[in-house]
Amino acid sequence: MHGYVGSLPHHDGSELYVPDPNPRLGERVTVRLRLPKVGDVSRAWVRVIEDGEPELIRAVHDCEDGSDVWLRAELPVINPVVSYRWLLDGGPHGYQWLNGAGLHPHDVPDAADFRLSVFAPPPQWATGTMYQIFPDRFAKSVDRPAPAWARPAAWEDPVIGEGPDTPRQFYGGDLDGITAHLDHIASLGVGTLYLTPFFPAESNHRYNASTFARVDPLLGGDEAMARLAAAARVRGIRLMGDLTTNHCGDTHEWFKAALADPLSPEAAFFFFKNHPHDYDAWWNLREMPIFDHRSVELRRRLYDGLDSVVARWIGPHALDAWRIDVANMTGLHGDIDLSHEVATTIRRTLAQITPETFLQAESNHDASRDLLGDGYQGTMNYAAFTRPLWQWLLPQQSRPYEHGKYPALPNLPGRAIVAAMRALSGVAPWQATLHAMNLIGSHDTHRVAALLGERARVDVAFGMLAAYPGVPMIYAGDELGLSTFGPEYARIPMPWAHPDRWDAHRLAHTRALFGLRAGSPALRRGGLRWLVIDDDVLVFLREAPGETILVQAARAAHPTLRLPAAVVGRDLSGLTGAPDLVADAAGSVSLPDDGPAFRMWRVGRGG
Amino acid sequence: MHGYVGSLPHHDGSELYVPDPNPRLGERVTVRLRLPKVGDVSRAWVRVIEDGEPELIRAVHDCEDGSDVWLRAELPVINPVVSYRWLLDGGPHGYQWLNGAGLHPHDVPDAADFRLSVFAPPPQWATGTMYQIFPDRFAKSVDRPAPAWARPAAWEDPVIGEGPDTPRQFYGGDLDGITAHLDHIASLGVGTLYLTPFFPAESNHRYNASTFARVDPLLGGDEAMARLAAAARVRGIRLMGDLTTNHCGDTHEWFKAALADPLSPEAAFFFFKNHPHDYDAWWNLREMPIFDHRSVELRRRLYDGLDSVVARWIGPHALDAWRIDVANMTGLHGDIDLSHEVATTIRRTLAQITPETFLQAESNHDASRDLLGDGYQGTMNYAAFTRPLWQWLLPQQSRPYEHGKYPALPNLPGRAIVAAMRALSGVAPWQATLHAMNLIGSHDTHRVAALLGERARVDVAFGMLAAYPGVPMIYAGDELGLSTFGPEYARIPMPWAHPDRWDAHRLAHTRALFGLRAGSPALRRGGLRWLVIDDDVLVFLREAPGETILVQAARAAHPTLRLPAAVVGRDLSGLTGAPDLVADAAGSVSLPDDGPAFRMWRVGRGG
Repeated sequence: MHGYVGSLPHHDGSELYVPDPNPRLGERVTVRLRLPKVGDVSRAWVRVIEDGEPELIRAVHDCEDGSDVWLRAELPVINPVVSYRWLLDGGPHGYQWLNGAGLHPHDVPDAADFRLSVFAPPPQWATGTMYQIFPDRFAKSVDRPAPAWARPAAWEDPVIGEGPDTPRQFYGGDLDGITAHLDHIASLGVGTLYLTPFFPAESNHRYNASTFARVDPLLGGDEAMARLAAAARVRGIRLMGDLTTNHCGDTHEWFKAALADPLSPEAAFFFFKNHPHDYDAWWNLREMPIFDHRSVELRRRLYDGLDSVVARWIGPHALDAWRIDVANMTGLHGDIDLSHEVATTIRRTLAQITPETFLQAESNHDASRDLLGDGYQGTMNYAAFTRPLWQWLLPQQSRPYEHGKYPALPNLPGRAIVAAMRALSGVAPWQATLHAMNLIGSHDTHRVAALLGERARVDVAFGMLAAYPGVPMIYAGDELGLSTFGPEYARIPMPWAHPDRWDAHRLAHTRALFGLRAGSPALRRGGLRWLVIDDDVLVFLREAPGETILVQAARAAHPTLRLPAAVVGRDLSGLTGAPDLVADAAGSVSLPDDGPAFRMWRVGRGG
Repeated sequence: MHGYVGSLPHHDGSELYVPDPNPRLGERVTVRLRLPKVGDVSRAWVRVIEDGEPELIRAVHDCEDGSDVWLRAELPVINPVVSYRWLLDGGPHGYQWLNGAGLHPHDVPDAADFRLSVFAPPPQWATGTMYQIFPDRFAKSVDRPAPAWARPAAWEDPVIGEGPDTPRQFYGGDLDGITAHLDHIASLGVGTLYLTPFFPAESNHRYNASTFARVDPLLGGDEAMARLAAAARVRGIRLMGDLTTNHCGDTHEWFKAALADPLSPEAAFFFFKNHPHDYDAWWNLREMPIFDHRSVELRRRLYDGLDSVVARWIGPHALDAWRIDVANMTGLHGDIDLSHEVATTIRRTLAQITPETFLQAESNHDASRDLLGDGYQGTMNYAAFTRPLWQWLLPQQSRPYEHGKYPALPNLPGRAIVAAMRALSGVAPWQATLHAMNLIGSHDTHRVAALLGERARVDVAFGMLAAYPGVPMIYAGDELGLSTFGPEYARIPMPWAHPDRWDAHRLAHTRALFGLRAGSPALRRGGLRWLVIDDDVLVFLREAPGETILVQAARAAHPTLRLPAAVVGRDLSGLTGAPDLVADAAGSVSLPDDGPAFRMWRVGRGG
């Protein structure tokens, strides 16, 4: 069958393949390889790097399981990060490597080696679906006087998309407003509520903090945060904050102290080329001076130790996790590169409080160098998920996106986007892929419904968001089908008062998808095995011990796919009304051929 | 034409594409893109990482040149390493990235981004051809009494290939023996003489040094070294030594001091688990205790500063360069990773003496993390050159190699081995590729003549060694056609007394190839542009301002290749008797179709 790849050898970092993914230094760790019996690979070795030197370890027979033979190898854990790949004897040239990016019939560099580590993994709850809220636009509990810097807006006013008033337009959403809508959020199967910044700042986005000491009184202050945290906890929902460790506002108390006195400790927090007027700022925006992470005092105040900002907001009164804003830039400045130190210090501070904390990073491209496990535990996954998925599902006529940074978003076939997903997730450890924040839209992009247009394509995007490895992040409003074009316009206030403007199909579909995901070990932690990679249709398995889910995503109608009978199973899609999978007389199973369409089945063995 | 890739956009780090490859921080650096007019790419951007954030810079029209349009972009040098790639508007899906590994019709990770740096490049002489000598086996000037540990051998005795006597078998080659054969070495177009270790040690390979303070008296001592260095210099030949910074011998004076006193400074040079008997050793070989690079005193003595071993041997009395033994492991031990610090410290020490020094690393796999320019400047290129080339040229029946580490060496088609070469060189900066030690055999491998068998295939291997980007390393004796199987047997003494055992064709061919290379800017520093990548034949250009060389390597007879007329040119192969390239009436040029064969032409523009 065209595009069928289900008979290839497979390994990933999930439990079926790595039963204990978190060994200690000096131990051995078991890794397993699945060899379909119909394939042509007979023997395998693991190449593991020990103190910088590659060594080969012969894999032995482990067991047989239906159509597969399993091999096993024990790897010595010599270094904190275990870097390994499989060498397969068999295939077209009798020589293949299997690494995180797939099979290669020739030598390849080490960047996509599989990686395990001795670093503690994120807590179990961290794989729960996230829901992103931009507080000024979510819900308002009470009218407050607007501050002097703001341009007040009524909830129904149109968003100002560009110009000096864009960051000043102030709708007045607050934390109690969020608390009032927690049942809506819980109905989506959400496990983690992600709030963009809540510290006082002279903008509606609050990425230019004036202090990290308190919750913005305009949001209801520390008390409103405690109310939100308590109410969320009752519903099993954790909170994640959003911290800029790269810069603060020029109104920040530390920056004001630095301006006032070049000999103050705070003056060393910033890069003054000529005190006080000439300093380095993020993208040369003077209102966002960059932090100099060489300052021990800055690190102590911001993220190093239990008295830091990072630590202070962790606890029942507030957060369980941080998302670090522009983490990809934090600590990097000219010939200074403290980015890894920043990440590992924040992680260490969080771990000191409790292992139940979680640390996410913002990045928009390859973040693999930060994801080995001792620093950031996941990253916003524009690179390995969002962009490839958009590129597959976009209408033929593409439009510029992401602040015009890219010339045009191309429309790519399934083979190209899976190649991208495999290449980009292949350079990160499995634990980082499993904890990546997958998203189909955010406060920094177009609304997915506007970008993709056709409703059935948006179904596919939501389906992939629920089914692909990683932590799905739903941007508030996308579940109501909000459809505005332009990143700023995506910050449209939630139309709570106008249920007639909600997309009922979208809301029901979102609830069904993420409700299912919340209780599914395979979707939350299972491996990823591709079965069909074709231009208009993709089929893959999510596999965990005890549960296997078959996922089919089509962007268009396509030839019928006939799979081996091993995948008979029960429809999970609910809303899509797909038939159960039943083996035919020839022992095969046919999948639907329509599209755009997204479907899932929980599969069992059969034949 | 099958496998023709000459009409694709191209960029590499060579002078045509990066006129000034060594900018300073804060400057701008010009990068250029070649767009063949017959292609479908119209516009291009450079994506450059600035403080961790990707930015796009639109490329502008630079000039036109025959069949090509050149675009140009100016990149800000924000960080010491400038990481960039091209985004091309055009191609099958209207979207392509061009990075060090080639063209990609989808998103890819950053590992193969092109890279420039502010770090000083190696000196001009460093691109000269190397000649590797294992001193015990090269030539003997005088009979000396064998030491107590040794098992003396007469020059004609067979090599003992395995067992305890293998490292003890002592032929007694010495430095004055080398000096006596410098005219032979110079006749090969050699620019650098690479000596495996010359410090006293209780083995014939001397990788288990007893001291770093003096040249082994069995080799003639410091005076013989000074004579060799002076005589080499007269012939324009530089010397490169071989230093183990990973370990020393258990007979080393530092280790003996450490054994004698657990409180001695030297005791901190090693990893004693239980003093004195239980210590960490290389591959658990007790005669090679590993250094603990956390010791400041060790670093000071070994490589940090002008009083160190590294510094002491640089100068007219001895060396211009070091090759660091097992550099891939040095500084890595369990949860200690000081490998980058070791590399950068050695480099800094060398640079303190003179910028005319050169630093090479041993590695047998992907060394890209060490090759950004501030540490090792090149690496033994088994990964991106030797192994792919062997895999292409091996007879169908492959045999195990490299100490049995790999299960079997496969025979791969040209497409697979070029994919490997591009993937593996793509992760290193161009300067590292240009200064990589390419080799087709060494004291650690089979003799290339034995491995490949057929003489014409060995011609192709030598041809590729001379023509491919990098610093060719000729292992002494390969130019005489020595043909022994098994790494230990490759250490056979040079048959100086038996010219009848020399392969006259091999010697003449080697002299012609590397003599040509010594005076060719294109072969020494030119870019690499592939024209044909097919299973049995490879064609590429080496391009420098003022000189372009066309290279054809075939492992077997193949269909005739017809190239665009722009590549008419004059035969350089000499020995192969290839015709000059002349355009036919249709404006094309035909290349020979026989094989195995290796040919080069110096080409000019025509039509």
